Amino acid sequence: MESELIAYLRRRLPSHPMLRLGIGDDAAVLRRAGADDCVLTVDLLTDHVDFELAEVDPRRVGRKALAVNLSDLAAMAAEPLAGVVALVLPRQGGMELAVALYEGLLPLAEQYGVAIAGGDTNSWDGPLAVSVTLVGKVTPAGPLVRGGALPGDRIVVTGAFGGSILGHHLDFEPRVAEALTLAEAYELHAGIDVSDGLSIDLAHLAEESGCGATIEIEAVPLADAAFRLVDRLGDGSTPWEHALSDGEDFELILAVPPEEADRMLAEQPLDVPLTSIGRFVEEPGLWQRDARGARRPLVARGYQHEFE
Amino acid sequence: MESELIAYLRRRLPSHPMLRLGIGDDAAVLRRAGADDCVLTVDLLTDHVDFELAEVDPRRVGRKALAVNLSDLAAMAAEPLAGVVALVLPRQGGMELAVALYEGLLPLAEQYGVAIAGGDTNSWDGPLAVSVTLVGKVTPAGPLVRGGALPGDRIVVTGAFGGSILGHHLDFEPRVAEALTLAEAYELHAGIDVSDGLSIDLAHLAEESGCGATIEIEAVPLADAAFRLVDRLGDGSTPWEHALSDGEDFELILAVPPEEADRMLAEQPLDVPLTSIGRFVEEPGLWQRDARGARRPLVARGYQHEFE
Repeated sequence: MESELIAYLRRRLPSHPMLRLGIGDDAAVLRRAGADDCVLTVDLLTDHVDFELAEVDPRRVGRKALAVNLSDLAAMAAEPLAGVVALVLPRQGGMELAVALYEGLLPLAEQYGVAIAGGDTNSWDGPLAVSVTLVGKVTPAGPLVRGGALPGDRIVVTGAFGGSILGHHLDFEPRVAEALTLAEAYELHAGIDVSDGLSIDLAHLAEESGCGATIEIEAVPLADAAFRLVDRLGDGSTPWEHALSDGEDFELILAVPPEEADRMLAEQPLDVPLTSIGRFVEEPGLWQRDARGARRPLVARGYQHEFE
Repeated sequence: MESELIAYLRRRLPSHPMLRLGIGDDAAVLRRAGADDCVLTVDLLTDHVDFELAEVDPRRVGRKALAVNLSDLAAMAAEPLAGVVALVLPRQGGMELAVALYEGLLPLAEQYGVAIAGGDTNSWDGPLAVSVTLVGKVTPAGPLVRGGALPGDRIVVTGAFGGSILGHHLDFEPRVAEALTLAEAYELHAGIDVSDGLSIDLAHLAEESGCGATIEIEAVPLADAAFRLVDRLGDGSTPWEHALSDGEDFELILAVPPEEADRMLAEQPLDVPLTSIGRFVEEPGLWQRDARGARRPLVARGYQHEFE
């Protein structure tokens, strides 16, 4: 399972003087004498897992392949600089597909000032795989890591959650500008982007910080899509369940000291709403508190790559 | 076809102030104010194309995934710094496979001082794909590009060619140290590593330089494996044909001014032999000259990813 492999890599990967931050965060941070810290991140998307090529415009797939990496840089409050693209194309229709992927990716690259510097193009008798690697730089506020949350910090999120599968997972706006604005104007202790699911990514952040987190369930902002998905599924699931576990919202979860959080929430400096959905606590684990104040454990749910 | 896609990208990719060198070389070169130029390269390998997982130790595959990227940095005369690894694993046996890949990759990373900074691990119901992205830095001599060869320059190669499929394509030593030694001690006009095939990669270099190249066929150093492959195939092919077109030798082709080439060939500063196999000429195209001095066109052959 993915988490087991990460545990193996944490034990196995040697430390290196250049690695300010290695495996286990949204991106790695490289330190070099006489240069700004450099942030490096890679994501690889595949047909039938991250998208269904038969059902979507491949331009949206190309856009997503870059956007998920931009979201990783946003989670580090890093500024995107440049990237490379590696493709494995099916042999039939590969040329047209490759062009469509780039026609979806390049406008987003331009929007965020990312120099697409090169790549590697392969073909095989198999489904599409797209890998994008981005280089970014940290701002004077430093990288926003997962491990800095303190008990008492507020859990502040951008945007709304749930039902991403209805389209948001392809068309979301990575929170790059938002992260840079917040990192400049406020003291942030920690951050992560929601790729696997609000509850599981919050659990990741809390665990990296050596603390726990309590969510006020009623405070979680629900996306319209969460309601639409409930209607469509008709399986008795609730919008809250989707908001907590659906994944690919690509919103930010931030750990913000209480007074900073109060100021941030009052000022609402972004176009997208900022909401406090709870707080970090000393006791490890994930907790939920309902409107009557009762606290009980919350099982973190979300997407994990399964393999044996 | 791969070359068509590269042509499309060259037209389509916008210029960017940070891009000192973009698509079309062995790696991209990024320029940032106040920092050394940074080199970025990615390669994605897949089962049944770049290796046959059923037939080889996966540690050799993991090693190769890093080694091909190191070879790209060698072709730029750049020093490797750090890398990230993206995997798509088959669901069955994925964990064991991932560990074996890393156990093959990490000793090579250590050997070359590469900080493995992170990665992305995915799974699917499909074959293995491995992507490695490396960051490097150029030396004071600057990046060794494809486009700098001048008519009259000698074509100097490291090592020997042909028959790589018999094992060398998995176990080759990337010519990183060799490239750095040569770039420091001699004036080099251009360079490329032989991934697709000696003749086709030489043609790439000549084309980028706006000139042609004439190979003295008898001067091409033949690997033992080229002879063994001829014996094994028994199809009437010759060792020279394999040396010119087999691909994955991962040796260097260099364009060296004549006097520098004479000095380099006399001094033989490397553990691996340096050989002059011809010269760059004004007339575009690839040419061969046999022992009797007759010149005729040489068809560049090698591996190209085919897709339509």
